[in-house]
Amino acid sequence: MNISEIKIAVDAMGGDNAPTEIVKGVVEFINKNKVKVILVGKADLIYSQLLQYKYSQDMIDVVDASEIISNDDSPTEAIKTKKQSSMVIGLYMLKEKKIDAFISAGNTGALVAGSTLIVGRIKGVKRPALACMFPTLNGISLLIDVGANVDAKPIYLKQFAQMGSIYFRNVVGVKEPRVGLVNIGTEDKKGNELVRESFKLLKDSDLNFTGNLEARNIFRGEADIIVCDAFVGNIILKHSEGLVKDIFGLIKKELNSSIMSKIGALFAIGAFKNIKKIFDYSEYGGAPLLGLENLVVKAHGSSKASDIQAALNQCVKFVEQDIANEIAKKMENDKEEEKGE
Amino acid sequence: MNISEIKIAVDAMGGDNAPTEIVKGVVEFINKNKVKVILVGKADLIYSQLLQYKYSQDMIDVVDASEIISNDDSPTEAIKTKKQSSMVIGLYMLKEKKIDAFISAGNTGALVAGSTLIVGRIKGVKRPALACMFPTLNGISLLIDVGANVDAKPIYLKQFAQMGSIYFRNVVGVKEPRVGLVNIGTEDKKGNELVRESFKLLKDSDLNFTGNLEARNIFRGEADIIVCDAFVGNIILKHSEGLVKDIFGLIKKELNSSIMSKIGALFAIGAFKNIKKIFDYSEYGGAPLLGLENLVVKAHGSSKASDIQAALNQCVKFVEQDIANEIAKKMENDKEEEKGE
Repeated sequence: MNISEIKIAVDAMGGDNAPTEIVKGVVEFINKNKVKVILVGKADLIYSQLLQYKYSQDMIDVVDASEIISNDDSPTEAIKTKKQSSMVIGLYMLKEKKIDAFISAGNTGALVAGSTLIVGRIKGVKRPALACMFPTLNGISLLIDVGANVDAKPIYLKQFAQMGSIYFRNVVGVKEPRVGLVNIGTEDKKGNELVRESFKLLKDSDLNFTGNLEARNIFRGEADIIVCDAFVGNIILKHSEGLVKDIFGLIKKELNSSIMSKIGALFAIGAFKNIKKIFDYSEYGGAPLLGLENLVVKAHGSSKASDIQAALNQCVKFVEQDIANEIAKKMENDKEEEKGE
Repeated sequence: MNISEIKIAVDAMGGDNAPTEIVKGVVEFINKNKVKVILVGKADLIYSQLLQYKYSQDMIDVVDASEIISNDDSPTEAIKTKKQSSMVIGLYMLKEKKIDAFISAGNTGALVAGSTLIVGRIKGVKRPALACMFPTLNGISLLIDVGANVDAKPIYLKQFAQMGSIYFRNVVGVKEPRVGLVNIGTEDKKGNELVRESFKLLKDSDLNFTGNLEARNIFRGEADIIVCDAFVGNIILKHSEGLVKDIFGLIKKELNSSIMSKIGALFAIGAFKNIKKIFDYSEYGGAPLLGLENLVVKAHGSSKASDIQAALNQCVKFVEQDIANEIAKKMENDKEEEKGE
């Protein structure tokens, strides 16, 4: 698809900094790219934000949505009852192919439920999965699933590995991403029932499966694709975020606690900036929900304008590289193979 | 029980630093405490280590064991076939009440399987659980289960919370420890099937249940007792260990990367020492396997002499405070209540 034909909708009402940072991010993006963006949400609020900026008006459309799905809403219920919400309207636009991708920083559960119900899965995909770029000592890995399937089955995990590998190959450029299965030991028979069965499926697949991945080695970048169910994935993701934040908070506090250490901090400021950079992976955008017929991206709840820009760039890349189609082909092949067995 | 009557056996062959550090730790302990310790393992190796130290010989016994269970051994198989191993012999000594507690830094899976098979559970306890002290910004919490039950049921998790609360109250002195259930959100209905059902049981219990605990808040010390199945617990534990180690490794590397930052590090050395102290929780000893008729403690695989000393002190406290008996009473009461319902 030609970049000038791509249209992306953004949920203007989702996330902690909506609509201010969402609108700002969209304006900054269209001022750099020839891609049309549709802002979905309370039109009066969106326009009052847009008034502050200089931008080419034919590059931004506004679609009014009178309701908002908040983080306190029960996911499936919200999707079913709040038909006029920015999220539901955006997802229907995607379903009807009026847009090529939809971004929301809102309620994760609702976005996952709504995407599956409204947008629909690629044929052969058992469950879509939320994939998230994850910083490591080696660069970057992909953690999948971080939010869609808390009660998973082995075949789901195999498909997460397949979809994750395709995504990672296209986005990061690694030809044969190493797939690791999150487990509590490296031996084949370690773990709970889910991972023991998943291990067998992954071992028999054509993926570059490198075996079980112990939690202590995740940050070392031992695998490109870190496969797990959404319960475990969410815990790894949130635990990392919390721990890293708290450790740096602790360091800051300690360095401020005496004159000696304050002087030390001044000298070492460059070193700390370098470390902080490692943990900044916002350039990769949000978490794509892989396995859907069209692209939905979950942006972080605390997204700022720069994160929305990154998510928009991510969508352009995804659509240009036709990643959904590549996943569809893989699933089709897998089905043929199963038949042929 | 009078402290001078307590007898503790230590697996001299378990862990990365066996038998050197194990024997050293035992000698240092008996030189400070009037508690008899039995070293179980290859007698010639143990005696050759003991020769190096000055100690009161009637405070250490050696029990010969010709076999060793290594980390590569399959847990249940090793327990069944290596009858002459230090671990199996030690567990039988505990079963036969020749000792009051058994410590091993060896194969975790084998120790858990062997303890359940040989030592036996307290009546009413569905599954013993491995409990581990976990450093937080607030001080210390207890993470349970970290290694025994990778496929858990809601009733197990409730019992983990009960046993953990009793242990924590006795060891740390917190009267009503706050119990948090590890989950992917704070709302009641969040999570997978296991935690949703466990939530209900914990809510209806007489525990000081404070609700779901998000992974990002674990290190903040939001709960004293952090309840989860062993798969999740092991991932939290190992992920923390790995991440903390790697972040400090990164800081060290960066601080050594230029003259400026090296100078900074010199000034700030006190601050870094303070931070490091927070993550040092070896004083609490190893991880007790709660729910057994007698005490088994899993020491960290990389245990040094000081860790073995701490584990020995922990055993003395556990036996003196009669924690196993308190757990047994709680289970008995729970059963009576169930009958009365």
